[in-house]
Amino acid sequence: MDHVEAARGVAEVLAADVVARDAKGGAPEAEVALLRESGLLGLLVARELGGAGGSWADALDVVRTLAAADASAAMLLGYHYLHLWRLGRYDNAELAERAARGTVREGWFWGGASNPREPGLTLTPDGDGYLVGGRKGFATGAQVADRIVVSGSVEGAGGKVMVVLDGRAPGVRHAGDWDAFGVRRSASGGVEFDRARVPGEWVVGEVPPGEEAARPDQSLVVPGFQVVFAHLYAGIARGALTAAAEYTRTKTRPWTGSGVETATRDPYILETYGELAAATAAAEALAERARAAFDRAARRGRSLTAGERGETAVAVSTAKVVAQRAVLDVTARVFDVIGARGTAAGAGFDRYWRDARTHTLHDPVAYKLREIGDHALTGALPTPGPYS
Amino acid sequence: MDHVEAARGVAEVLAADVVARDAKGGAPEAEVALLRESGLLGLLVARELGGAGGSWADALDVVRTLAAADASAAMLLGYHYLHLWRLGRYDNAELAERAARGTVREGWFWGGASNPREPGLTLTPDGDGYLVGGRKGFATGAQVADRIVVSGSVEGAGGKVMVVLDGRAPGVRHAGDWDAFGVRRSASGGVEFDRARVPGEWVVGEVPPGEEAARPDQSLVVPGFQVVFAHLYAGIARGALTAAAEYTRTKTRPWTGSGVETATRDPYILETYGELAAATAAAEALAERARAAFDRAARRGRSLTAGERGETAVAVSTAKVVAQRAVLDVTARVFDVIGARGTAAGAGFDRYWRDARTHTLHDPVAYKLREIGDHALTGALPTPGPYS
Amino acid sequence: MDHVEAARGVAEVLAADVVARDAKGGAPEAEVALLRESGLLGLLVARELGGAGGSWADALDVVRTLAAADASAAMLLGYHYLHLWRLGRYDNAELAERAARGTVREGWFWGGASNPREPGLTLTPDGDGYLVGGRKGFATGAQVADRIVVSGSVEGAGGKVMVVLDGRAPGVRHAGDWDAFGVRRSASGGVEFDRARVPGEWVVGEVPPGEEAARPDQSLVVPGFQVVFAHLYAGIARGALTAAAEYTRTKTRPWTGSGVETATRDPYILETYGELAAATAAAEALAERARAAFDRAARRGRSLTAGERGETAVAVSTAKVVAQRAVLDVTARVFDVIGARGTAAGAGFDRYWRDARTHTLHDPVAYKLREIGDHALTGALPTPGPYS
Amino acid sequence: MDHVEAARGVAEVLAADVVARDAKGGAPEAEVALLRESGLLGLLVARELGGAGGSWADALDVVRTLAAADASAAMLLGYHYLHLWRLGRYDNAELAERAARGTVREGWFWGGASNPREPGLTLTPDGDGYLVGGRKGFATGAQVADRIVVSGSVEGAGGKVMVVLDGRAPGVRHAGDWDAFGVRRSASGGVEFDRARVPGEWVVGEVPPGEEAARPDQSLVVPGFQVVFAHLYAGIARGALTAAAEYTRTKTRPWTGSGVETATRDPYILETYGELAAATAAAEALAERARAAFDRAARRGRSLTAGERGETAVAVSTAKVVAQRAVLDVTARVFDVIGARGTAAGAGFDRYWRDARTHTLHDPVAYKLREIGDHALTGALPTPGPYS
Repeated sequence: MDHVEAARGVAEVLAADVVARDAKGGAPEAEVALLRESGLLGLLVARELGGAGGSWADALDVVRTLAAADASAAMLLGYHYLHLWRLGRYDNAELAERAARGTVREGWFWGGASNPREPGLTLTPDGDGYLVGGRKGFATGAQVADRIVVSGSVEGAGGKVMVVLDGRAPGVRHAGDWDAFGVRRSASGGVEFDRARVPGEWVVGEVPPGEEAARPDQSLVVPGFQVVFAHLYAGIARGALTAAAEYTRTKTRPWTGSGVETATRDPYILETYGELAAATAAAEALAERARAAFDRAARRGRSLTAGERGETAVAVSTAKVVAQRAVLDVTARVFDVIGARGTAAGAGFDRYWRDARTHTLHDPVAYKLREIGDHALTGALPTPGPYS
Repeated sequence: MDHVEAARGVAEVLAADVVARDAKGGAPEAEVALLRESGLLGLLVARELGGAGGSWADALDVVRTLAAADASAAMLLGYHYLHLWRLGRYDNAELAERAARGTVREGWFWGGASNPREPGLTLTPDGDGYLVGGRKGFATGAQVADRIVVSGSVEGAGGKVMVVLDGRAPGVRHAGDWDAFGVRRSASGGVEFDRARVPGEWVVGEVPPGEEAARPDQSLVVPGFQVVFAHLYAGIARGALTAAAEYTRTKTRPWTGSGVETATRDPYILETYGELAAATAAAEALAERARAAFDRAARRGRSLTAGERGETAVAVSTAKVVAQRAVLDVTARVFDVIGARGTAAGAGFDRYWRDARTHTLHDPVAYKLREIGDHALTGALPTPGPYS
Repeated sequence: MDHVEAARGVAEVLAADVVARDAKGGAPEAEVALLRESGLLGLLVARELGGAGGSWADALDVVRTLAAADASAAMLLGYHYLHLWRLGRYDNAELAERAARGTVREGWFWGGASNPREPGLTLTPDGDGYLVGGRKGFATGAQVADRIVVSGSVEGAGGKVMVVLDGRAPGVRHAGDWDAFGVRRSASGGVEFDRARVPGEWVVGEVPPGEEAARPDQSLVVPGFQVVFAHLYAGIARGALTAAAEYTRTKTRPWTGSGVETATRDPYILETYGELAAATAAAEALAERARAAFDRAARRGRSLTAGERGETAVAVSTAKVVAQRAVLDVTARVFDVIGARGTAAGAGFDRYWRDARTHTLHDPVAYKLREIGDHALTGALPTPGPYS
Repeated sequence: MDHVEAARGVAEVLAADVVARDAKGGAPEAEVALLRESGLLGLLVARELGGAGGSWADALDVVRTLAAADASAAMLLGYHYLHLWRLGRYDNAELAERAARGTVREGWFWGGASNPREPGLTLTPDGDGYLVGGRKGFATGAQVADRIVVSGSVEGAGGKVMVVLDGRAPGVRHAGDWDAFGVRRSASGGVEFDRARVPGEWVVGEVPPGEEAARPDQSLVVPGFQVVFAHLYAGIARGALTAAAEYTRTKTRPWTGSGVETATRDPYILETYGELAAATAAAEALAERARAAFDRAARRGRSLTAGERGETAVAVSTAKVVAQRAVLDVTARVFDVIGARGTAAGAGFDRYWRDARTHTLHDPVAYKLREIGDHALTGALPTPGPYS
């Protein structure tokens, strides 16, 4: 499989009805099915396990390509990659391999439920496994996932354990309550676990105390999410820019009194496209720098040092804030170059801004800037935690 | 009637269900009824004709107050004021007086159909009046108007004539096709006239050749629209800011690792509110300057010179571009200070941005900047035309 | 005296050689002499004391007018007004009157030495007066002042006392060490007091504990400085814009490939002038709002409440941050519209940016934004202190 | 020679007295001598000709490194590289080789005199060579150059010819009139040629009609200048940022009322550093993208197609506009994080902004944006010309 071609193919299919799906909202079953068929779910799985043996650079490239067409679908795939990949960071090679093979053979789509701003889940020992209890909101992908990665506190014990749940197991209930005005098909609502059983073979292992802070390679999953975000934003910006250009070329009328015969010759429209294209290019260039850094760090495996992890996190945060600013700017300003008629609901241009504005609130950009600034000013590296 | 108090009352009623009405879309019958009851429709009508004898400064203050709660309703009222007022700029005092009295006594709501970027209407002489034919898109308010001001070319003659149509006359058909993602209750769809009859008593008069360009006091209606826009934008910005502050105070949680106990003590949230409040204050201050200028110009009546008109137009354009930038910035950035949960559709915060983004495309800000710049650089005054 | 005309006259004289004076640096003796001759030093002095009986609105209008030509001179005059005015806020009417009369009759120019970020001065009792000792940096105007307002801690006692020093008294030494790259003729270097004697008749009175925090009318001097700054910045912006327009009209060549015959027809030059003019207008409008608020507060005298003072401070801070952003933007961007040759040292355009950039560092804009934001978010009023 | 190490060494030496040299202005003799000693002048010369065999990527990396310390010196070296390199784009291999060998062996520093906005020079045939006559302003480097590349119209013939002049030849007179407020040691004044003789062996060849437009590889010198600019700007931004961080760490005091004990813990200082670091990183990432593209294009030699040249020019323009915005922003805003005392002339921080503001006026950013926008909107490639 050529992942570039596959991604383009999927993007094309998604683009065809993204406006309608966005309007309808609901669970992204069709999107997950499409990703499954495309073979992209196994992109990061090693060739010897039947996967495509792609790198993180490849995977992020795919995320960016899809994001240009459909941010929700791109987000789902990016999160899927991270959930599957993080299993391999635990000392349970057999499980990780099994998860990988299942992804390739069965087309498992992965989700998670780990919003760190909410109370945790409870794991009650049950035979060789656990019964999971509790509720998590904002569990992107869980609603349509075949397998869900969660961690919870073991009842009566101090520690935390990570487990894999079958998304359709009894006791797993999806609230279907995702109601934001953006990334409407990202299945980011809540999930409730009521004595949902995890067999022993799907117990990943103990989550080190301090969680993400612990081992650099384990906590790398956090900048992993952030680098997915940077690609998501760069992709949305590119998508909006490309769609706007198509619209301006084919539908926008020259302004009364502009003295030009087509909108494509309007000096201000050209200048604005220049600004939007430059902002998008900057987002892309930094996203590519960040993904190269992340790819290198991911390949280091357990040898990854805290310093390397920190430098990677700074590169990722830098890419993220630049991409965030670019996507908010581009998706708001494309309207200036498509004109008033481009606000018709059917044209679907507001979707880019809604998706960008919604997702970029994942964590406050000010605190990312603070972290980047601290590094620039004092050389400090970000403290590993749930957001960096 | 105290217009300030009346405006606040109407705003409060509108605020109560604006999110639901916006979601539903459709014709703003309820809003027009509310405005009618409030007595605000006759604010600009002279006391001797039974009106409130308010000034344009008063009227624009009302528009801004309503815009903070409901941009569509504010827009409808602003356009209403302009359509009624423009009748008085023609040499047909009796008709203007009749229109004013009807507004006060019968609660007439006024709309228009005059999008200058579309082909004009045709007036076929019929007895002492005309039969109106043709189609206009983006006829804000027409759908719910009691009286519609239109102008058209007289068939078989060269000139253009302005007339007033009964909004429910046979032959007047509203397309109800307004489908933008913002100002969804502004009744800005198209209207079609199929031999709709205008009796002689509602023929306003000949539109001077060159139309808006002609007499300074007549063409003042064009900066009139723009000054309404400036108040619309300043009002939306204030509305978004106020609603966001309420949300942050009552619902936003302090950020993980911010080290503060409430969101209201977060240094970045405070800084951002400072920026948004300063931007809003600048929009308001310039809107007030512009409305004072417009008020003065309007009072000059037929004595208004081309130079005075031009200076007014520059003041108005300046207010408009500053308000436009402020409202786009404020409505996009309030999310940074309310946080991710504020993107819930029910919270209704996206509405501010959607309304602002949609309406600010009325005419391109770049050409307004060009006009302001020409004045600053060479002292040139804007050429009277359909947009300035 | 018509202060508007007087200010214009002074501005014209200053403009003639401001570039040369800026290049030379040094003590602004000539500028102070010019202000003295103009009669503007006594603008705020009551008519019954021989002054012009102007309002703060008048005084700030003068500051803004001068700032367009020469920021250093405008700054000196603004500080002069504040130092003289603050004397009247103490319960020593006779001294205040004497100070006012001396200003009118003798042409006294007032300075101060009160940088709150440095250790204070010491007052050693000596007969009915004091001997002043210590050092202050950044004592704007002191170097060329006839009278200097200072406060210091009384040796052996707890309190602080405000006194007026003769600027040429023995023991007053000016370091002449102002070496910033902007406002180079603002005499903002240090001053050292070595047993400089203050006779009893020039002892103003005790500074209430908590200093600026104390009585609302006394601490109003602090927003007083800030409202002077807002006018300084609005004035510099206007000065840069006007000078740039003159340059573009007379010297700038149309760009190769722009397709226009004069720079005044270049679409991007016009657009940029529009942006700069709009930013300047916003700064002016808010400065005028703030000065109206400050004028009202100043007129309230001892009746001024803490709440009124706080609202005034917020209005002033808002004007200041908007003016600060405008002046930094305008003075940096005028180069884009005058072109490369406008960077010639002799053209003097860098002076606007240097003056603006230097003075706007008086106190960090971020903390002003925080204060404005706190008011917008929670209604809190700024804590009276040395900067607000 | 390791060019990275050499560049760092030169940068260190330059940094030691750059503030003093900038203050003094005048001809950069010392800088050129330093570059000569460093061996960097021959970096692009092939190894077989005695050079370092470096790539354009190497050369641009050196330019950026030097720019962080001294923009004038970096600019001189960048222009030197281009002037020497462009000789090899003519069908006169022997001359190009001789020029390269002279650069390595004799340490020739190269300048040019080719400002396209001025009238051209005249070449009067004289034996096997020419006598050059005429005047050029803004001839960066010529004043201190050993060899100057110029082109002129052959008297009595139609065409244009490129020649190499000895910078000290009789008849070459340097005006020494560079008087901008930035890049003060860039030797960018005028040069006059009064029958300055060029022997036949230094006649490069005919400049194809349409000049830069002609052969893609020949006209690549124009994006070559622009990619040097992008590196100049990225380097200045990095230099300002690094110097500011050192200052904040060692000298900036925490703000009164910030509640933090050192400036390095101030939330707003950290945020601002984050913004400046992100902007600088974006400039660097795009500069590196652009230099990779330029390097590839340069290696293509005569095979370079018009399309490839155009794509390179777009990549370069994109990098340039992003770097331009970054450097103007960073150099103006570092003051916000170093504080008021950082405006002391001796601290030298204004130099970064002055250098950036002066050089970024080389050609208007609006027209570069227009070009980038045209490509984004319609796919058009920039018309080869003197600025793109």
